[in-house]
Amino acid sequence: MARKTKEEIAAIYQKMQDYICQELTISDGDGKFVEDKWERELGGGGRTRTFSGGKIIAKGGVAFSAVYGPTPDKILKKLNLDKAEFFATGVSIVLHPASPMVPIIHMNIRYFEMENGVHWFGGGIDLTPHYIVPEDAQHFHQEVKEVCGNYDSTYYRKFKSWADDYFYLKHRDETRGIGGIFYDRLSADSEDHFEQILEFSLAIGRLFPKVYGHFMKKNNSLPYGEKEKTWQNLRRGRYVEFNLLWDAGTKFGLETNGRTESILLSMPPLASWEYMQSPTEGSEEAFTQQHLRKGIDWLSFER
Amino acid sequence: MARKTKEEIAAIYQKMQDYICQELTISDGDGKFVEDKWERELGGGGRTRTFSGGKIIAKGGVAFSAVYGPTPDKILKKLNLDKAEFFATGVSIVLHPASPMVPIIHMNIRYFEMENGVHWFGGGIDLTPHYIVPEDAQHFHQEVKEVCGNYDSTYYRKFKSWADDYFYLKHRDETRGIGGIFYDRLSADSEDHFEQILEFSLAIGRLFPKVYGHFMKKNNSLPYGEKEKTWQNLRRGRYVEFNLLWDAGTKFGLETNGRTESILLSMPPLASWEYMQSPTEGSEEAFTQQHLRKGIDWLSFER
Repeated sequence: MARKTKEEIAAIYQKMQDYICQELTISDGDGKFVEDKWERELGGGGRTRTFSGGKIIAKGGVAFSAVYGPTPDKILKKLNLDKAEFFATGVSIVLHPASPMVPIIHMNIRYFEMENGVHWFGGGIDLTPHYIVPEDAQHFHQEVKEVCGNYDSTYYRKFKSWADDYFYLKHRDETRGIGGIFYDRLSADSEDHFEQILEFSLAIGRLFPKVYGHFMKKNNSLPYGEKEKTWQNLRRGRYVEFNLLWDAGTKFGLETNGRTESILLSMPPLASWEYMQSPTEGSEEAFTQQHLRKGIDWLSFER
Repeated sequence: MARKTKEEIAAIYQKMQDYICQELTISDGDGKFVEDKWERELGGGGRTRTFSGGKIIAKGGVAFSAVYGPTPDKILKKLNLDKAEFFATGVSIVLHPASPMVPIIHMNIRYFEMENGVHWFGGGIDLTPHYIVPEDAQHFHQEVKEVCGNYDSTYYRKFKSWADDYFYLKHRDETRGIGGIFYDRLSADSEDHFEQILEFSLAIGRLFPKVYGHFMKKNNSLPYGEKEKTWQNLRRGRYVEFNLLWDAGTKFGLETNGRTESILLSMPPLASWEYMQSPTEGSEEAFTQQHLRKGIDWLSFER
């Protein structure tokens, strides 16, 4: 069995976008996705879908792209390569809910290939609750671990730790949220292995609407007031800080003339900043602040 | 006459902070500055003053610092220098007004010295109106030009163009605002010259409350509604993007373990993002969007 071509992978990822949009529309109940097709001058393009009029989702997008052309100099230099054509395809999602009781979620699956045979997969799924709820964190990590375990027994442990390191705001010494998994430069050493990694990425894709649908359903009806909205906007400010200061994908995209509107789809609808803001001792906000730490085993965490 | 020592400059800059805070408190009429003194582990410290309860100023700070110690490796590498002690002092301000009709303003004056004799001044003042008003832009640039002209006939032209290049969002192909002046690594070649550059920085410091007081008085009573508030938050989003993505000072500070809360004092109280937001043709918002361009001569601009 020959391994799938880059075009086939792009077609599969595009279908994944359809599937995810369909499922999220059902989970939200009110809103719908609006599609924005775009083309890239140097080759390829994408379909950016933003959610509009949602009951639960305030702002968010599910973006698919398949781009190709001369490999940007930055990558060539980093990989110490001569000129080469590249092909990259992926699905990327960030959803900001209206309710502070529903977490922010991010998911990305991507495939990169160069004409010289170099190829890799990357991606991940991670959760950024405005309020950390240990049972929710446990549920999320349990689901992610289960998917990982179906493909490789080392994936969860390795990629969970990678997410902790990646989604980290060095200038605050805090993580973006409760993490999840992150992986990059995952190359196959056989055709079977290639299919296995591809299937793993698709399993993450399918997990996304399932696990987020769970939180939408479970948490959206929870009561909240001004205090929680204020905290939500502060946490969204941290989300902005991470994405603009530390996220390698965002930086790389903006520095290599990527499509700004697609890259910044991850920005929240509203965010706020306050000097020396610090939650009241013993509050739920303080509990969250104290648990934005690397290395927490959410599977066995007890409050 | 011997040139002033670094300690004397720090003392003068500290007094400048007092002066500016005093003047801004009068101009606002309602609020007051709250001081937060801090010390730096490796040497020195600062007085961060944030404005609270303001009628016109929604969020802002006037920060003074004088820090010293071993020069960060990043600087040594950049300057190709061996180990050396450094001393840096300055006043840094960003003010975000409540009204979208009042511009955001930024001012900074700073002095840097190393034990090996290397020294320089840096700074500038620039305006980011939510709505560009040509008469206001002209007034601002006229005042800045006049101050520059008192010290060096080449300053305004050179530093205006530097500000255009510096306060630029490459990923949006737009400037942060209408600019002003920006200068860095300004070294003296004689004691007189040193005093002249120092005096120039103080003149900018004094200009700050004068020119901003003018806009507070003139624009704060202008009417506005939801449309203008929405636009203001979007423009504040761009301010966040510039500061976190492109501002060399912010990046440098956060990467060298600077004091996060002081560095991010520049963040707005609230900011928003919208996918593919584009102002209606012919609107005031569109006029502003179209004039966030380098190289506009605001002194002779006619609408």
